[in-house]
Amino acid sequence: METLRQRFGRPLRLGVIGGGPASWIGRMHRSAAELDGWWRVSAGVFSSDVARSRAAGPLLGIDAARSYGSVEEMLRAEAQRSGDGIEAVAIMSPNDTHHSCAAAALDAGLDVICDKPVSETHAQALDLVARCRRRQRLFAVTHGYSAYPVIRHARELVRGGVLGALRLAQVEYMQSAMATRIEDAPATNRTRWVLDPARSGLALVMSAIGCHAQHLLCFVSGLAVARVCADVGALMPDRRVIDHASALLELSNGARGTFTAAQAAAGSENDIRLRLYGERGMIGWSHRNASYLTLALQGEPARTIGRGDAELSPAVIAGGRTPRGHPEGLREAFANIYAELAQERMALSLGEAVAPGPYPRIEDGAHTMAFIEACLASHHSGAWRDVAA
Amino acid sequence: METLRQRFGRPLRLGVIGGGPASWIGRMHRSAAELDGWWRVSAGVFSSDVARSRAAGPLLGIDAARSYGSVEEMLRAEAQRSGDGIEAVAIMSPNDTHHSCAAAALDAGLDVICDKPVSETHAQALDLVARCRRRQRLFAVTHGYSAYPVIRHARELVRGGVLGALRLAQVEYMQSAMATRIEDAPATNRTRWVLDPARSGLALVMSAIGCHAQHLLCFVSGLAVARVCADVGALMPDRRVIDHASALLELSNGARGTFTAAQAAAGSENDIRLRLYGERGMIGWSHRNASYLTLALQGEPARTIGRGDAELSPAVIAGGRTPRGHPEGLREAFANIYAELAQERMALSLGEAVAPGPYPRIEDGAHTMAFIEACLASHHSGAWRDVAA
Amino acid sequence: METLRQRFGRPLRLGVIGGGPASWIGRMHRSAAELDGWWRVSAGVFSSDVARSRAAGPLLGIDAARSYGSVEEMLRAEAQRSGDGIEAVAIMSPNDTHHSCAAAALDAGLDVICDKPVSETHAQALDLVARCRRRQRLFAVTHGYSAYPVIRHARELVRGGVLGALRLAQVEYMQSAMATRIEDAPATNRTRWVLDPARSGLALVMSAIGCHAQHLLCFVSGLAVARVCADVGALMPDRRVIDHASALLELSNGARGTFTAAQAAAGSENDIRLRLYGERGMIGWSHRNASYLTLALQGEPARTIGRGDAELSPAVIAGGRTPRGHPEGLREAFANIYAELAQERMALSLGEAVAPGPYPRIEDGAHTMAFIEACLASHHSGAWRDVAA
Amino acid sequence: METLRQRFGRPLRLGVIGGGPASWIGRMHRSAAELDGWWRVSAGVFSSDVARSRAAGPLLGIDAARSYGSVEEMLRAEAQRSGDGIEAVAIMSPNDTHHSCAAAALDAGLDVICDKPVSETHAQALDLVARCRRRQRLFAVTHGYSAYPVIRHARELVRGGVLGALRLAQVEYMQSAMATRIEDAPATNRTRWVLDPARSGLALVMSAIGCHAQHLLCFVSGLAVARVCADVGALMPDRRVIDHASALLELSNGARGTFTAAQAAAGSENDIRLRLYGERGMIGWSHRNASYLTLALQGEPARTIGRGDAELSPAVIAGGRTPRGHPEGLREAFANIYAELAQERMALSLGEAVAPGPYPRIEDGAHTMAFIEACLASHHSGAWRDVAA
Repeated sequence: METLRQRFGRPLRLGVIGGGPASWIGRMHRSAAELDGWWRVSAGVFSSDVARSRAAGPLLGIDAARSYGSVEEMLRAEAQRSGDGIEAVAIMSPNDTHHSCAAAALDAGLDVICDKPVSETHAQALDLVARCRRRQRLFAVTHGYSAYPVIRHARELVRGGVLGALRLAQVEYMQSAMATRIEDAPATNRTRWVLDPARSGLALVMSAIGCHAQHLLCFVSGLAVARVCADVGALMPDRRVIDHASALLELSNGARGTFTAAQAAAGSENDIRLRLYGERGMIGWSHRNASYLTLALQGEPARTIGRGDAELSPAVIAGGRTPRGHPEGLREAFANIYAELAQERMALSLGEAVAPGPYPRIEDGAHTMAFIEACLASHHSGAWRDVAA
Repeated sequence: METLRQRFGRPLRLGVIGGGPASWIGRMHRSAAELDGWWRVSAGVFSSDVARSRAAGPLLGIDAARSYGSVEEMLRAEAQRSGDGIEAVAIMSPNDTHHSCAAAALDAGLDVICDKPVSETHAQALDLVARCRRRQRLFAVTHGYSAYPVIRHARELVRGGVLGALRLAQVEYMQSAMATRIEDAPATNRTRWVLDPARSGLALVMSAIGCHAQHLLCFVSGLAVARVCADVGALMPDRRVIDHASALLELSNGARGTFTAAQAAAGSENDIRLRLYGERGMIGWSHRNASYLTLALQGEPARTIGRGDAELSPAVIAGGRTPRGHPEGLREAFANIYAELAQERMALSLGEAVAPGPYPRIEDGAHTMAFIEACLASHHSGAWRDVAA
Repeated sequence: METLRQRFGRPLRLGVIGGGPASWIGRMHRSAAELDGWWRVSAGVFSSDVARSRAAGPLLGIDAARSYGSVEEMLRAEAQRSGDGIEAVAIMSPNDTHHSCAAAALDAGLDVICDKPVSETHAQALDLVARCRRRQRLFAVTHGYSAYPVIRHARELVRGGVLGALRLAQVEYMQSAMATRIEDAPATNRTRWVLDPARSGLALVMSAIGCHAQHLLCFVSGLAVARVCADVGALMPDRRVIDHASALLELSNGARGTFTAAQAAAGSENDIRLRLYGERGMIGWSHRNASYLTLALQGEPARTIGRGDAELSPAVIAGGRTPRGHPEGLREAFANIYAELAQERMALSLGEAVAPGPYPRIEDGAHTMAFIEACLASHHSGAWRDVAA
Repeated sequence: METLRQRFGRPLRLGVIGGGPASWIGRMHRSAAELDGWWRVSAGVFSSDVARSRAAGPLLGIDAARSYGSVEEMLRAEAQRSGDGIEAVAIMSPNDTHHSCAAAALDAGLDVICDKPVSETHAQALDLVARCRRRQRLFAVTHGYSAYPVIRHARELVRGGVLGALRLAQVEYMQSAMATRIEDAPATNRTRWVLDPARSGLALVMSAIGCHAQHLLCFVSGLAVARVCADVGALMPDRRVIDHASALLELSNGARGTFTAAQAAAGSENDIRLRLYGERGMIGWSHRNASYLTLALQGEPARTIGRGDAELSPAVIAGGRTPRGHPEGLREAFANIYAELAQERMALSLGEAVAPGPYPRIEDGAHTMAFIEACLASHHSGAWRDVAA
């Protein structure tokens, strides 16, 4: 990998959209991008408030001249720089801005790294798919959970047939972030848009966490969700936004499944759990123990597979940065997504052959939007619904 | 408790139906009944094959003269004994015999301890409810899982309002007993009726394990299942019996829930998991760690509560027999059900006041049958169904 | 096994010494003995107070005529019964009575099942070894922990060479039973002798729990402790009895080890942990998870082996009574010791060939006493000491 | 914190010593230093081979002109830069170079961040203590484990008296890195010095991992090790370096303890475990679950305290960078040490009041060297030894 970076000669230049000084996800993106030296954060728009945005950049180590007041300004100004303008944007602004920011960046010829959800509707997501193809741009969705090394290993195991045909899947994302009446607390920048159904998306719980769970299931299993029967609503009385969704699933191979996402699950932490049962055994993973995977083959003792185990594939081992037994976290997983897109872009730029990395792409983002729409339609009809292709 | 037993002067006499020498559940029932000295197994019918039944008794330490060839014979002969006939029956024969055995025993004036499911249909279960009331008999359903001390404690916590109003419930029972094609293996006494849809019940997975999960949820939460939307079928290709059911739930207080029971979950062990989320936190329990309960109140560190903890109520502590930290298992839980029914019967016999124990009763068995019928009806219609009261 | 019991024709008759109605360990012994039908508790001495002893028997279901006032009386009276006298004694009286009770029972031609420690000194233990051999009697020490099925499996794995040569061992038993000043609480039957250094043994913590840890290590590893360097004393200020011992160990093959036993470890439960490291990997076990064993071979994912796994040997599987995933506890482990001694005795009585079971014997009890004496001698000298052969 | 950084106006400039492109610990240090923007890696010496060192820098994003051939060269050249020379060094070169590099840097007026062990002997460590004081320099030892937020919280709990007086401590560091005969594998840069007793220190296992365990114990407990009785050697036959040490401990308040460090513990991962038992309960932590702490107070359910819990102190919460339930790892812990030293230096430079951070300092490094020397002396004499003050 050093070789590719050496041949390319420099880190890629990234412009960030959103993620001001008080935002943990902003620091997550910036530090993940720079962690391995594939990227340098070179410019940014950090707030929808022009003055606030311009002031924030220098606090984050960004050149004041490249701390812009708006996305349009950044795209225009950076395009005019002589050879050192940004080459991609990372989008971590409120949900209702993702589509327009991404569309503008793609149209400006930039690659995009975008927080979920990629858009407000399935139609918008398909529009981004089309723009990506038209402009031949790369588009990564930061489903960080999919980039843990052992999740990558799980994917290899499942696709390699270790479990045989999949029969049953269980996935859930339980969180307590909205288990108290945050509606009654003083509004913050974040709660202002999160609690506004018009801005946070078709179903807040899906935009916030449910999409991660659905994607994780699809990513590891290699299957799409074909049909759903969903129960969607607010666990918290009198809440205007949706904080819970449970669904029965039919996967694209006919396997059955269940899905639950809840933001008002008081007492839970930030618990994502995936279990896949196949003909020959099961794979289980929990975010609480993100560096370990359970593989329980029928008739054999359960195995606990760890990041760094000797038997992992070189690609999976490369996703870790420390020896077995030294905890890594979500930052390193995020960094894997940034690293993979960078490598793909550098190789393309150099005209080299490139094996596309497994990071989530805009097509995955579009499937998520179709899933969300199908869940809502199912809930309203009280019946099963197909997930649009 | 010693006092009640002393006043009564002797153990109660139990007749068993089913559970021959090769049956682990037979040994479970007999050893649980006798564990604390509340019962003595005095008679039995151990097989539908008359000769086999008569031969089995002495192997199990039962008097040959009281090792009967049929239930009818046992009930008739024991009734004619002068003062030392059986006072209750324990039923662990195939599912399709439960209702008739229980009905006959109740009509003979005996108490009943019955394996789940109590019947083949909801109507039959209601019939048993009526017979119990008519004859003033006691009827325990051996949902052993409900009798672990920490499950009893969970029930007290939830009913005491520790979680506030319940909002979301998750319960599952995953098993791999049918994850291989047992249809292709040589038939056994057990597989002969288990694999016959006409004998194993409306939905095998429900009769075998799903009922335990549903009951556990209701037992701890104190709520009934009001409505279901279910997905029911066979995970194993070409299987004639139902080995999987998942359902979305609405509980009697409006709380939401999910339910999964699967016998073909390859690689799983015998995993029952319950989580209840309320206004103020959650309670979690897993059968893998049956002596411990997780209580996670919002904003506080999660607590691991163990059997034997000082803060448990006297009733819960009495459900354990060894100090904190000495593992107990399902046998002791079964013994709790036997002990509670015995104490209730002894007190009634002595004309003493009695606080009814929390063991599962025929009314619970009837709710289970209504739940199963509603799941099947929902599956066939693809829509939500009410659970009959 | 049914066959042997059938050939023998009846359960063996057991007399118990100690373990009155308020004693949990008394109930443990009695229920374990009877659990599988190998034994029937037929007589007993339940207190050193004659009247109390005679009164206790009937409360426990023992014939009043066989509820004796002293051990001597029981041995004499039972010997005079015509053909239905007790055939073994189970000793669970205070520590300072074990040797004399066991010696008397052996001399009366009875087998002995004895709680640890078997004696107050190593010399007394050697005396019991000699008496056993002279009278050709069987002697089991109820180190219940050694009889969990997965501990038996661990022993088979280690002795089968799965780990290669052992290099390092860690064993500990942490308890909080004496973490509060029980000296200041009202005296009970138990604390009266436990807190008296003259009665509870050379080192209370060793008699109470340390011996279990040392035995577990030796049982699984197949090694003796050859040399020790120990730190022994009271963690609780002003305590007259010893509540803590830690030691560096050299095992008989030269492997190194550590040992800790503490009764004043506030906040711990009843935690026994064993880890053995060999050339090729490690085996780990914790009492908190008594039905599971960790096997971590170098370069391979750790395996969690459960009671009931298909790959266990028939002897180990026979040590469990329920399918995989149904919790069993210490009672079933105790029952294994009772069952094995019974089977050995029945086979010997019938003149049949018999494979001696792995239950702990008097020779193991003697090694424990030598270990305890060496720890104390080491502590007093501040140097390593050999453990007497 | 932003404010301090703003007032200081720029990141501090760091020169690294050791940690070439193939070194994971090199990347750990560099990314941790830069993670929060407190430092910028500005110069370095990456190998003892001059050419290799100069070539490595640019691969790591370091200016070629500041990629030096030796430490002397770096210190001299950087001192001559006009106002943008390095202000501190981070030392991650082989163990036998630590003292001389640190001494030279201190003498050059630089702060030092140094990998453990800080020196080869206790005397050398005392020499560094003296140089630090003389030059008024800051010196951090990168015991990363001590900088996990929940370890900081444990320290606050213990020092705040939650456990009452400490009575017993257990600490261990088990690793399998040397469980195979790495002596027989092709030599690497690392094994060349690690396997040379003259270069890797008095006791390799202590230099490599044991020092972390000892420090963790002292850090959390607030106690020093007063006396030791140790067993030190090689678990691997025919090994020339020491790969195992176990010891009985007496802490400075008289509490007892045990210590084990092993590099040839086949099948283990990288397992550090600490348990502290006090009058009122225990605290437990395992590296496998680095974001969670167990607090078990006598008579109360055990609590699992997580990074991000609301009740943590602001200082502890500041040590995390993501909300509760989002895994962080060793990198963030390392970054805490870098951040704390930076803040202390910036405040000192600005003449502001500064509360010294809890990061490990040269005095802690000196205590570690005294501990190691006492263990070796104890082993050779077979008796207890005092740890030099």
